[in-house]
Amino acid sequence: MPDRSTLTFIIGGARSGKSAHAETLATTSPPPWAYIATAEAYDDEMRERIALHRSQRSEGWTTIDAPLDLAGALEALPDNQPVLVDCLTLWLTNHMLAEHDLDLEYRRLADVLSQPRGPWFVVSNEVGQGIVPDNALARRFRDAAGRLNQQVAAIADTVLLMVAGLPLKVK
Amino acid sequence: MPDRSTLTFIIGGARSGKSAHAETLATTSPPPWAYIATAEAYDDEMRERIALHRSQRSEGWTTIDAPLDLAGALEALPDNQPVLVDCLTLWLTNHMLAEHDLDLEYRRLADVLSQPRGPWFVVSNEVGQGIVPDNALARRFRDAAGRLNQQVAAIADTVLLMVAGLPLKVK
Amino acid sequence: MPDRSTLTFIIGGARSGKSAHAETLATTSPPPWAYIATAEAYDDEMRERIALHRSQRSEGWTTIDAPLDLAGALEALPDNQPVLVDCLTLWLTNHMLAEHDLDLEYRRLADVLSQPRGPWFVVSNEVGQGIVPDNALARRFRDAAGRLNQQVAAIADTVLLMVAGLPLKVK
Repeated sequence: MPDRSTLTFIIGGARSGKSAHAETLATTSPPPWAYIATAEAYDDEMRERIALHRSQRSEGWTTIDAPLDLAGALEALPDNQPVLVDCLTLWLTNHMLAEHDLDLEYRRLADVLSQPRGPWFVVSNEVGQGIVPDNALARRFRDAAGRLNQQVAAIADTVLLMVAGLPLKVK
Repeated sequence: MPDRSTLTFIIGGARSGKSAHAETLATTSPPPWAYIATAEAYDDEMRERIALHRSQRSEGWTTIDAPLDLAGALEALPDNQPVLVDCLTLWLTNHMLAEHDLDLEYRRLADVLSQPRGPWFVVSNEVGQGIVPDNALARRFRDAAGRLNQQVAAIADTVLLMVAGLPLKVK
Repeated sequence: MPDRSTLTFIIGGARSGKSAHAETLATTSPPPWAYIATAEAYDDEMRERIALHRSQRSEGWTTIDAPLDLAGALEALPDNQPVLVDCLTLWLTNHMLAEHDLDLEYRRLADVLSQPRGPWFVVSNEVGQGIVPDNALARRFRDAAGRLNQQVAAIADTVLLMVAGLPLKVK
């Protein structure tokens, strides 16, 4: 039996098919599948998105909410469990709003992700290819997201860039 | 004689050379070439852009305006006609401003595009790789464009991502 | 000895690892290495970024400031000097703020870049993959940056798109 303990990092723009592709890849392994949701519903638009995503997932999925303690949620998983983390940019948003020490959080997360114990799929957004944002918070977020994406991509076994629903292999 | 009935989808950011590359590809087939323009001139900046694009196209091109009924314009084409659709994101903008049912429009368009009757080239914008926009309309547009791009990429024979004027093959 | 006179163009979003990758590539040649900085410190945020970047570079680098006369700075380099230009989009910003003739500046720069006299690495930002910006100046900048990137990519020997710190070969 091949070693299925690998980290796949899936990055792309909004509505580029990241989550759907990650689901397709995760479900090539037998269930049960773990879906680690980092979204926190701050408003109705967000609540709607979360409910829609949840209703679109097929049976066999268990949802684990981890808006902040993503490392802990990953550590609590059994071995060989296929998992989809959706997504890193929302997790980052939650930590920025809580004014946590990002470097510390990145390190904790990278420690866990560098030793995947199953077929792990992590989704994140590319947010840095537009015009420099007007406001300082958006620029800070953009920088922080870029740094986070680089760190995870560096330790991932496979990195895919999603373009219009199609994966482009980067690593 | 090879089957030249194929759909090529060309996606990229602003000023990434999408239209120019699509023109280069379309004109490898003999003229006459059809240029289906979806732009609607709402203001002077737009009128200027349209006029500039039109003046830059070489002879042999026929321009067809189809700000809304793109499916109808494609259906009216003769067989084996090379065609450039420029572009899907402006067509989407026009339908959103007219408050049309997007799912219905997407289905009509996908029906026609899934059966190309010549070398068809469709251009669209990647708009989802920046920071989440402040206003709700821009977010709705970004989501709608992403969904549209995914649908067209799924039925296209070839998908190219333009980067600084150069094509990167995605499919 | 192989011909090391080549132009490598490295494009990517904010915090995509462009400069770090360019540094890695440049330092495969023996020092001294030239770092041509185009940044002009208009405010504290910028000053901080510049100081941070400078402190992160290892020894063996000479920094040359060229906020406007980039072509001149390149012409003044000795033959076979590894050089990193960081970055084209800031250079463009400076010329737009000074209301210079961009076409003229592009031509001067392209003339010099088309005849590299060493391993030259030029970094630029992809800024066109977000939503159309609200304000006209940002749209003008986005168009100008896209045109500039196309021109440099066209004459480059190698073009790399940075995604989360990893290079994707475009040319």
